[in-house]
Amino acid sequence: MNYQIDSSELSADLAAIAAYSSSPPPGVTRIVYSEADQHARAYLRERCREAGLELREDGLGNLFARWIGSEPELPAVASGSHIDAIPNSGRYDGTVGVVGALEAIRALRRAGVQPRRSIELLLFTSEEPTRFGVGCLGSRALSGALTAEQIQSLTDGEGYSLDEARNGAGFSAPLAQVQLPAGHYAAFVELHIEQGPSLETEGLPIGVVRAIAAPAAIRLVLRGQGGHAGAVLMPGRRDALLAGAEIALAVEHAALASGSPDTVATTGYFRIEPGAVNAIPSRAVLEIDIRDVAPEPRDLTLEAVHKAIDEICGRRFIEYELTLLNSDPPATCDPGVIEAIVAACHSTGLAYQMMVSRAYHDSLFMARICPTAMIFVPCKHGVSHRPDEYASPEDIVRGTAVLAETLARLAG
Amino acid sequence: MNYQIDSSELSADLAAIAAYSSSPPPGVTRIVYSEADQHARAYLRERCREAGLELREDGLGNLFARWIGSEPELPAVASGSHIDAIPNSGRYDGTVGVVGALEAIRALRRAGVQPRRSIELLLFTSEEPTRFGVGCLGSRALSGALTAEQIQSLTDGEGYSLDEARNGAGFSAPLAQVQLPAGHYAAFVELHIEQGPSLETEGLPIGVVRAIAAPAAIRLVLRGQGGHAGAVLMPGRRDALLAGAEIALAVEHAALASGSPDTVATTGYFRIEPGAVNAIPSRAVLEIDIRDVAPEPRDLTLEAVHKAIDEICGRRFIEYELTLLNSDPPATCDPGVIEAIVAACHSTGLAYQMMVSRAYHDSLFMARICPTAMIFVPCKHGVSHRPDEYASPEDIVRGTAVLAETLARLAG
Repeated sequence: MNYQIDSSELSADLAAIAAYSSSPPPGVTRIVYSEADQHARAYLRERCREAGLELREDGLGNLFARWIGSEPELPAVASGSHIDAIPNSGRYDGTVGVVGALEAIRALRRAGVQPRRSIELLLFTSEEPTRFGVGCLGSRALSGALTAEQIQSLTDGEGYSLDEARNGAGFSAPLAQVQLPAGHYAAFVELHIEQGPSLETEGLPIGVVRAIAAPAAIRLVLRGQGGHAGAVLMPGRRDALLAGAEIALAVEHAALASGSPDTVATTGYFRIEPGAVNAIPSRAVLEIDIRDVAPEPRDLTLEAVHKAIDEICGRRFIEYELTLLNSDPPATCDPGVIEAIVAACHSTGLAYQMMVSRAYHDSLFMARICPTAMIFVPCKHGVSHRPDEYASPEDIVRGTAVLAETLARLAG
Repeated sequence: MNYQIDSSELSADLAAIAAYSSSPPPGVTRIVYSEADQHARAYLRERCREAGLELREDGLGNLFARWIGSEPELPAVASGSHIDAIPNSGRYDGTVGVVGALEAIRALRRAGVQPRRSIELLLFTSEEPTRFGVGCLGSRALSGALTAEQIQSLTDGEGYSLDEARNGAGFSAPLAQVQLPAGHYAAFVELHIEQGPSLETEGLPIGVVRAIAAPAAIRLVLRGQGGHAGAVLMPGRRDALLAGAEIALAVEHAALASGSPDTVATTGYFRIEPGAVNAIPSRAVLEIDIRDVAPEPRDLTLEAVHKAIDEICGRRFIEYELTLLNSDPPATCDPGVIEAIVAACHSTGLAYQMMVSRAYHDSLFMARICPTAMIFVPCKHGVSHRPDEYASPEDIVRGTAVLAETLARLAG
């Protein structure tokens, strides 16, 4: 059957959450545990209560909002995503999956559905690596891929520990209790914008994700020698910026030379010190992101980048310190959950394609503890992580309809 | 004769001013109009009053502390420098010339000298371009090289106008009154650390500066296209960081290829947006500093850099906006003032060499309105703009002795 999705409720939720931002519109900035994040969480808690859901939050701030099923002892079916947003990005990445899951639950309730399994909305903490350098913090911890000790060693760029930050935001439950056992959920489904141009190009409303690309990220600290830009002659300079510049270009070259058209590599973070026009840069910090849907070309690229760093720093007399922030295996989606999504597309009459996700998502880690798949909806020109990120209300309604139908099928 | 210079007073003044810093020791950060700058100014005002000097401040915060001569209607002889310091730099750059001039005046008074001309200590506002992008702000305005209108159009990196900033620091006199007429001073002498290794290498205590290098600085804003680092494939990316990286390397190349061993070119400022590991950089801001003691190789380098920017941005589909922050002519020092310094070296028995200044100084602009020259003292390994910048107390005393003798000769 077709559940009635309320487009105006979805749009209102998206607009309200977009307004909780530390940058002016249309850009959205919502860093984990910031005031904007806290306010958006308060809004969502209130909306979950209105929808009759039972709330729980763990020590990281992962939020669980449960609609109790008729057989509450059975493992629940879960759906959700994240609401944190990198600096000056858009309103759809992550948030569509949270408000979509909430509206799917509301639609099922309005239709009088009484599911056997409980259905749970999940809000994951800090999918974006902006503040603590690690992506999918909440789902990574949930799935046991990050231990309590590892979490406790994380600090942000200003030297605050994650522990201070979470306590400051009111999350103080023991971190050892964050991990959930395999079998805790019967299934997990995440609705998300594609963040690429494929559905728009094909004119299709729905993508069914069969695999999620494998990301690797490194942080690189370069130490050269500062000095007065006017007084120190060129030969023998040890300029950290110039080494960083060569490395950023080598990263691009390695991705283009990997042999796989799917390899992407980006130096997204690049900061120099002291950062004055008349001072030779003495220090640079780079963060580099390398991905492919297959692990081999990604790891070859990573290796090529590492080799280039070594050669460049040796030649320019720069000391370097390289940290592998993460290098996660790709995820394959569950055939059973994929089948439920495909069946939902058929019963809602929406065309779809099977596809891979080039961006990573909380589903990458949920796939480690339960059967998982994702539903993609188109976004304009494939643009994401920018203020002009856009998904149409119609496409979001379609994705939410497929999600509602999928959840109903999985919950029985 | 030899005036008695008090080493402990000099050291105490240097230590006190170093403590007014917004970064922890040994680094010094003293940005114009910041709290650290304000506190250091208050300290100096007090020390000038103790020395019996009459104070005046103009609308930019340039400080004039005058010891009235026996013929006060004659143009005064002036000496001084700046106390602002770039992020995480040292305690000697600029400050030595301010506390040195103050101690030279104290030494002359202790010796019972009664000069014909008044002797004036000058403290120039914002010699460093860190905050407003323009070096030698105070002396530039004093000399008329910057109009009141141009000053009023300056803003800092956070969008504060110079006008707001100076008012906030308590300097509100009209900017139109900052410029001093040619003939206002009989001479200007600036004591400064060399900021290069030449005196140390030669084992000489004093450098007499005969010319000051010609700096040019440009600001470059690059605009590309952001996007998700995982989802946007490599071909067709418009990554602002990569264009900036190529440009920084082209700047280095242009300096090395200028044909003059004295050409230096530095990208000292480099900031990207949004600056998240998983986002393609959409915008970059660079500040580039190009210098030579002769204007021709410097201008050729600037031209080569400009050409490279155009080629790189064209190839990478990056829009750019280039602003020439300054491109000042070099200064030649005055033979009469040089002669007085050389005579002072002879009467104090200190060996010296004639040399050029590769760094620019407030003297570059004072030379436009009065006969000007500089006295250099050695600094360790030629290091400057770094926390480990160092000049020995003995060398600072020697430079101050030469300054005192020079001022006595010039003031009659």
